[in-house]
Amino acid sequence: MNTAIVQVRCSRDLIPETAEAMAALEGVAEVYSVSGDWDLIAIVKVKAYDDIARVVTERLVKVPGIMRTHTISAFRVYSKADREAGLNFGER
Amino acid sequence: MNTAIVQVRCSRDLIPETAEAMAALEGVAEVYSVSGDWDLIAIVKVKAYDDIARVVTERLVKVPGIMRTHTISAFRVYSKADREAGLNFGER
Amino acid sequence: MNTAIVQVRCSRDLIPETAEAMAALEGVAEVYSVSGDWDLIAIVKVKAYDDIARVVTERLVKVPGIMRTHTISAFRVYSKADREAGLNFGER
Amino acid sequence: MNTAIVQVRCSRDLIPETAEAMAALEGVAEVYSVSGDWDLIAIVKVKAYDDIARVVTERLVKVPGIMRTHTISAFRVYSKADREAGLNFGER
Amino acid sequence: MNTAIVQVRCSRDLIPETAEAMAALEGVAEVYSVSGDWDLIAIVKVKAYDDIARVVTERLVKVPGIMRTHTISAFRVYSKADREAGLNFGER
Amino acid sequence: MNTAIVQVRCSRDLIPETAEAMAALEGVAEVYSVSGDWDLIAIVKVKAYDDIARVVTERLVKVPGIMRTHTISAFRVYSKADREAGLNFGER
Amino acid sequence: MNTAIVQVRCSRDLIPETAEAMAALEGVAEVYSVSGDWDLIAIVKVKAYDDIARVVTERLVKVPGIMRTHTISAFRVYSKADREAGLNFGER
Amino acid sequence: MNTAIVQVRCSRDLIPETAEAMAALEGVAEVYSVSGDWDLIAIVKVKAYDDIARVVTERLVKVPGIMRTHTISAFRVYSKADREAGLNFGER
Amino acid sequence: MNTAIVQVRCSRDLIPETAEAMAALEGVAEVYSVSGDWDLIAIVKVKAYDDIARVVTERLVKVPGIMRTHTISAFRVYSKADREAGLNFGER
Amino acid sequence: MNTAIVQVRCSRDLIPETAEAMAALEGVAEVYSVSGDWDLIAIVKVKAYDDIARVVTERLVKVPGIMRTHTISAFRVYSKADREAGLNFGER
Repeated sequence: MNTAIVQVRCSRDLIPETAEAMAALEGVAEVYSVSGDWDLIAIVKVKAYDDIARVVTERLVKVPGIMRTHTISAFRVYSKADREAGLNFGER
Repeated sequence: MNTAIVQVRCSRDLIPETAEAMAALEGVAEVYSVSGDWDLIAIVKVKAYDDIARVVTERLVKVPGIMRTHTISAFRVYSKADREAGLNFGER
Repeated sequence: MNTAIVQVRCSRDLIPETAEAMAALEGVAEVYSVSGDWDLIAIVKVKAYDDIARVVTERLVKVPGIMRTHTISAFRVYSKADREAGLNFGER
Repeated sequence: MNTAIVQVRCSRDLIPETAEAMAALEGVAEVYSVSGDWDLIAIVKVKAYDDIARVVTERLVKVPGIMRTHTISAFRVYSKADREAGLNFGER
Repeated sequence: MNTAIVQVRCSRDLIPETAEAMAALEGVAEVYSVSGDWDLIAIVKVKAYDDIARVVTERLVKVPGIMRTHTISAFRVYSKADREAGLNFGER
Repeated sequence: MNTAIVQVRCSRDLIPETAEAMAALEGVAEVYSVSGDWDLIAIVKVKAYDDIARVVTERLVKVPGIMRTHTISAFRVYSKADREAGLNFGER
Repeated sequence: MNTAIVQVRCSRDLIPETAEAMAALEGVAEVYSVSGDWDLIAIVKVKAYDDIARVVTERLVKVPGIMRTHTISAFRVYSKADREAGLNFGER
Repeated sequence: MNTAIVQVRCSRDLIPETAEAMAALEGVAEVYSVSGDWDLIAIVKVKAYDDIARVVTERLVKVPGIMRTHTISAFRVYSKADREAGLNFGER
Repeated sequence: MNTAIVQVRCSRDLIPETAEAMAALEGVAEVYSVSGDWDLIAIVKVKAYDDIARVVTERLVKVPGIMRTHTISAFRVYSKADREAGLNFGER
Repeated sequence: MNTAIVQVRCSRDLIPETAEAMAALEGVAEVYSVSGDWDLIAIVKVKAYDDIARVVTERLVKVPGIMRTHTISAFRVYSKADREAGLNFGER
């Protein structure tokens, strides 16, 4: 599973509508209204890494109300399960 | 469920160790190594809102290697389920 | 009581009117005209944490003149009373 | 009453202690641990404007753990009471 | 005497006119065209602290050509005279 | 092929040595000394997306002289060949 | 060979089209859609240094959809081959 | 008369002492403790423009406690007197 | 001779024309198209310091295509000749 | 002739010494003490573009007192002579 965190600034009077429209997109797991510099944060989860480009540069651009996005790519996920299994993270 | 997104900068030579130590904390759902200005992002999920302060200002500060954090609070979550149920978002 | 601090930039010729309109909203305790990068700061105080989203993303957006907001969530309040009582802050 | 909002960055492992020490100072009404770029925000309320300098540049500097502060001055407060009284804001 | 330093960005083709209009306002002591991020800096000097709000949020907004302002409040003035008098700065 | 662009700030007196050490790493295609805010930029090219984490958070951290990195992930590459082939970019 | 790295922000609904148009330009080796503050990054490779100005200030400005660019010049390239040859980097 | 506005960040526990030491320097008209990103602002007024360099890069650097300065040069002053005299600002 | 360095952002499709128009102005010694956040940099050299205001706030504003400028004042020039003369920079 | 503009931050108590040492370097035409975020600006002029790397990443790093540099590359110079000759700027 590949993950990206997309920070979104949208039209001030369309925050809930934009959030709902984003949440309905395939590949978008959750959308939050948030504190700070951005209005919304979407968690994108897709099977193939190439699909992040598809969600971010092709699907999100069709959601009305989005004015600007800033995408953060996740390289690797760390979880409680890994730790309990004493998982070896590669060549370290 | 209350959610916070914690961006973390840590000692350059301790990124995987810091990530694992954070992932092991109660209240931390997932930790990602990420692109951009920060080294790691932790997704914090707690039942009571007050527990965010406990995780962020009391537990995370004990993880060696963390140099600086920037926390984003989620106000509300938007999901596919809400939309399908035609959920009414309050007084709009 | 949950608190949020909302920094607001508004139309330059509507600062007092915007401030008064914000001060009249339910959940807004005080509004200040301020020095620095923002024109106004509102202190939001609500009983349920979920109401912050309601005030910030639903009510404030209806105030004409507001151009941009930046919300800061308060996690915990520290007061003189706590200190005098020798209050124990959880698991530290 | 004159108000200032003081944003504080402090030693990561001293956040609750610094907050309590600040809250105990004369002239400090409330201290919050907060989301975003700063660790703590203090609301300073003093009778004479000159006392803001005293609190910010003389008392706060004695609190161990504070690394940097950014002070915002409030010029005027807008409240529900003013509005209800149909208060006239000066020469506008 | 209370002092504020107001940094101003104005329409590029109206810099001298905006500067003159600002200089003519009651409460504005001097206006400078300046190097750096801002076009003009005004030094505001008023007797009562409350008048800073009046100058900044009510009078300056009526000057055509001003696009954005950033106000810095002075808390206390230090002068050669104070030093020569061996003035005691309060409780230090 | 997956690509990442890593911006690097390093010890001022070790720029050529750091650049050479980075260029020697498996997965690093090219290193440039550059204008602007950063000292060096490395182009990382790896077959599996997961290897970006390996190069950035495990191998680069062992290069002495690197003080800070900022990684940009490439989502998709656009080339002259694609255009000439009239390539269809997915579901648009 | 002279290299420049051009970061591009473009109209949100024209990202793939802008990327393809840029990739077709003479002097542009590759274009990537990317994470972070910018939408696209183009790698420009030209024989004569003067041609960078031609590509950046004359050709790229004709691509519709580009709103802003930020160009980084590469001063020198470091490669695995140089290292293996024990290349002497000038007067160090 | 040539004017410069010098913003100063100083050691947190030396703000009043640094302010007094700066105010005592020849060429420094006034020093203010201020709101915002900087601790102090000094107004430098000298007869010859070359003296600004002397005050800023030679005298101020000897004041203990100053950590960083940011100088703004004033190009021209606009005053009420000019306006009343119907002063002609050069070749416009 | 007084020097100022003026950074300019201009309309994307008018970079060479704006550069030529600036270069033709009296007081402008050279104009460069540049890497980084700005499109052009002009080196202004004038005999009297007051002329910098004339060039920057009166002449440059008439050049079509300029959107924003950021001026840096030079306080003093250091040259090889000074050094060879064993010039003493003492505490002037 | 290739030109680069190097912005320099140096140790506060070594500004004139650092400026002189930089001015003495081969390839450095002029050094200015300046207003704004940086302490010094050096104009580098070299015959071959590759020499910019030599001056910036190899010679400047040996000057004691320099803490950080930010280099801007000039792509093309525009001068009064070009304009008078009715010079044609390439393929526009």
